[in-house]
Amino acid sequence: MSKPFVTCRRVEFCDTDLAGIVHFSNYYRYMEKAEHDYFRSLSLKIHGRLPDGTAFGWPRVSASCVFRAPARYDDEIEIQVDVLNRTARSLTTGYEFRCGHTVLAIGEMKTTYCVISAEGRLESTNMPAEYVDRLGTF
Amino acid sequence: MSKPFVTCRRVEFCDTDLAGIVHFSNYYRYMEKAEHDYFRSLSLKIHGRLPDGTAFGWPRVSASCVFRAPARYDDEIEIQVDVLNRTARSLTTGYEFRCGHTVLAIGEMKTTYCVISAEGRLESTNMPAEYVDRLGTF
Amino acid sequence: MSKPFVTCRRVEFCDTDLAGIVHFSNYYRYMEKAEHDYFRSLSLKIHGRLPDGTAFGWPRVSASCVFRAPARYDDEIEIQVDVLNRTARSLTTGYEFRCGHTVLAIGEMKTTYCVISAEGRLESTNMPAEYVDRLGTF
Amino acid sequence: MSKPFVTCRRVEFCDTDLAGIVHFSNYYRYMEKAEHDYFRSLSLKIHGRLPDGTAFGWPRVSASCVFRAPARYDDEIEIQVDVLNRTARSLTTGYEFRCGHTVLAIGEMKTTYCVISAEGRLESTNMPAEYVDRLGTF
Repeated sequence: MSKPFVTCRRVEFCDTDLAGIVHFSNYYRYMEKAEHDYFRSLSLKIHGRLPDGTAFGWPRVSASCVFRAPARYDDEIEIQVDVLNRTARSLTTGYEFRCGHTVLAIGEMKTTYCVISAEGRLESTNMPAEYVDRLGTF
Repeated sequence: MSKPFVTCRRVEFCDTDLAGIVHFSNYYRYMEKAEHDYFRSLSLKIHGRLPDGTAFGWPRVSASCVFRAPARYDDEIEIQVDVLNRTARSLTTGYEFRCGHTVLAIGEMKTTYCVISAEGRLESTNMPAEYVDRLGTF
Repeated sequence: MSKPFVTCRRVEFCDTDLAGIVHFSNYYRYMEKAEHDYFRSLSLKIHGRLPDGTAFGWPRVSASCVFRAPARYDDEIEIQVDVLNRTARSLTTGYEFRCGHTVLAIGEMKTTYCVISAEGRLESTNMPAEYVDRLGTF
Repeated sequence: MSKPFVTCRRVEFCDTDLAGIVHFSNYYRYMEKAEHDYFRSLSLKIHGRLPDGTAFGWPRVSASCVFRAPARYDDEIEIQVDVLNRTARSLTTGYEFRCGHTVLAIGEMKTTYCVISAEGRLESTNMPAEYVDRLGTF
């Protein structure tokens, strides 16, 4: 990825907790939203159906975040998304959260491409060619 | 319903906001959880599949809540559930939230029995006999 | 209010539930976000401190919503905010949720202006002049 | 910690997403709730005021989770909490999520003891003696 992808969001009131700061669990929602914005920018889908009707998705394998500085209500957060690794079946993305010049948090998520059976069972498999093409080679 | 159904929950840290009180949007989650506890107490399902494989559920028609006193982290809340009305297709339930002798909030939800097509379309229809029997006649 | 205020948001993945539609509790978060966008458009604060350091806020008195059609992942929702009533201490706002030409939901919230003591006690009081001026007379 | 601490929770409807499984962001809320249950079992507070009125808390330094199997609506999840490390100022806890014999996820959180200034600034400092005594020596 030659140029990093950056997306923004404003902290909502209900994202805060009694300590007056963004509750840490919201950073994982923020990462997911940033990842989906990134996919959308590449015209890739995070969830949908293949031509034969089979449902597919990208469930999480792991997610982590290190918190450096608190964010507060109404802060405008910039989130930079970087592809850290891609295999035939999985994708690892990194996230840097900034408010102005302050780094708030650094996160990482690994997801895997899956097809979903009619009974709701998830099965990991190779991602289609358009994902390989647009997410890059590592 | 001769004897009211009562369920409890403890306020979690992430349910609070920067004002130090439970964010109002959580009362709707609390109502739903209480409603599901009530259904479970009657061995009724809120979501599942009919013998022929058709999915069914109880989507919301409306939900309202009046807030009288704030709840705070770690408070143990008692929620009383009452059936207020039942028609062939819909159910209206009332909720009283208490912490000790303080009434925190009074809520109401109307839901309707639906079957869900394979494409995810919801269609309201008459509820099966076991719901009629166990939810009572009005 | 001569011209209605309209704000937008896109449905996030985590806003959906196993029925494949936006979980109803999120409409209350959406209403709050729209209300805060409206306040921001008038340069009014929903939470802050008076010149003497006293904290103030706008806790909920009540909130209700009627659900007409389901919203789904990635839908772009338009939310129109109207001031329905204003007294010396309280504000009632209405919300219309649309996706394209479909009305998804109609909501209403009543909030009251409060000062917050150092111990966290909320006390309803008359709203300052700038709120009266900018929220209009009824 | 000679005997591991175990707590339970039932998956709520609103914890699921359109893939029919628990949305991964909820595992961080589940970890926090389990941590707080563990603190409560030791009569330790996660948030409060010192005798001189200073507020204290335990903000997150980092949190991570590896997801092995999906959890679904109404599943009863057992969460085992282990203290992995304790320094003068920080605590690292581990979490194992099980549903029956299936391990759903393995998580870890690091938190640090902080005092909170009247302006809401967090400052890391040595934890009081009762935390040292009850959380154990490493």
